[in-house]
Amino acid sequence: MAVTSGERVRRAAVKLFAAKGFHGTGIRDLAQEAQLSSASLYHYMGTKEDLLAGIMRDSLGRLLTGAERAVAGVTDPAERMGRLVALHVITHARRPEETKVVDDEVRVLSSGARRAVVELRDAYERLWGETIEAGLRAGAFHTPRPEVTRKALLEMCGGVARWYSARGALSLDELAGHYAVLALRALGAREPLAAPDLDVCRAVVASVWGPA
Amino acid sequence: MAVTSGERVRRAAVKLFAAKGFHGTGIRDLAQEAQLSSASLYHYMGTKEDLLAGIMRDSLGRLLTGAERAVAGVTDPAERMGRLVALHVITHARRPEETKVVDDEVRVLSSGARRAVVELRDAYERLWGETIEAGLRAGAFHTPRPEVTRKALLEMCGGVARWYSARGALSLDELAGHYAVLALRALGAREPLAAPDLDVCRAVVASVWGPA
Repeated sequence: MAVTSGERVRRAAVKLFAAKGFHGTGIRDLAQEAQLSSASLYHYMGTKEDLLAGIMRDSLGRLLTGAERAVAGVTDPAERMGRLVALHVITHARRPEETKVVDDEVRVLSSGARRAVVELRDAYERLWGETIEAGLRAGAFHTPRPEVTRKALLEMCGGVARWYSARGALSLDELAGHYAVLALRALGAREPLAAPDLDVCRAVVASVWGPA
Repeated sequence: MAVTSGERVRRAAVKLFAAKGFHGTGIRDLAQEAQLSSASLYHYMGTKEDLLAGIMRDSLGRLLTGAERAVAGVTDPAERMGRLVALHVITHARRPEETKVVDDEVRVLSSGARRAVVELRDAYERLWGETIEAGLRAGAFHTPRPEVTRKALLEMCGGVARWYSARGALSLDELAGHYAVLALRALGAREPLAAPDLDVCRAVVASVWGPA
């Protein structure tokens, strides 16, 4: 598939910001990696901070859209939660560099750009929080301090970006299914636990992020 | 308490490496932060890589020593696991910058220095793995793919470094107790779950890392 110059710049930035940090990455590095002149690079990215903010909004926006689609129309809290976990795990395992940039560089942004990013993240985490609350109300989940449990599970699931390798023996489906069970157990859901509908999650990932 | 020049250099390095990355931190930044001349700085740190490797070995070495002390003589797998979780959570919540440096900068090290760091990390994770295996053998835990569960729990627990604030409403003891329950549930331990002995964990933290 043909890759646009804008997309080449974006990919170069994710790769370099992840490897060397935002402050460690120069305009010349970006131009070289994207195979553009420094002058034409500015046409595609604005400032380096614009580029970073765009990557973060794009990444968190996709995650939010994907999560909303994955749970649309699902009322059972365990199935909703399982799908949220599966989506989070699959996308973070597939995009470790993007995860690193989004997690590490928020404080680099000026307050205006940061606000937009933080709002997207809050909306995404709210979806998790509401699903946990619904499960508690329905008696399907049992956990004190649900907001701490939510943070713990988000860290657990996002952490796959730091160790999962597609070259290993574990498929993304197996990984996602395993994590869904761990999360539901931690939430005090009753066994036996059904695996979430991974076909739906896979289709959402393909529709929001494109093919693997 | 008086702080030695060597310790000042170490603290300056943890702070700057966490904020700006290893490659983004210059010798002059380090000297300024540690309030030493660049020339005398070399006396305390050798090369910048020596300094980083020393920080990592020290951090992982303390974690391993602390974990070994916390579970010494404990045979019940749930109590062992709860103490490992509590120790990991307390130390990572207390030292977020050190966590970031140890997690992010391993690939900066040359192969010799890296080997020593990786061996310490492997030994530490082996302690978790052996405890999980012992729980499975005793019928106290039930999880498929125990090595994946171990990684998931380590990421969950270490993740507190990215969000916990001592200024919030949650004490370190409450945090550690909550995470112990989440981890034991994820491992399929039977309810009701006893909290691990946090007095022991607190004493180990004080003996290995010093007062808070």
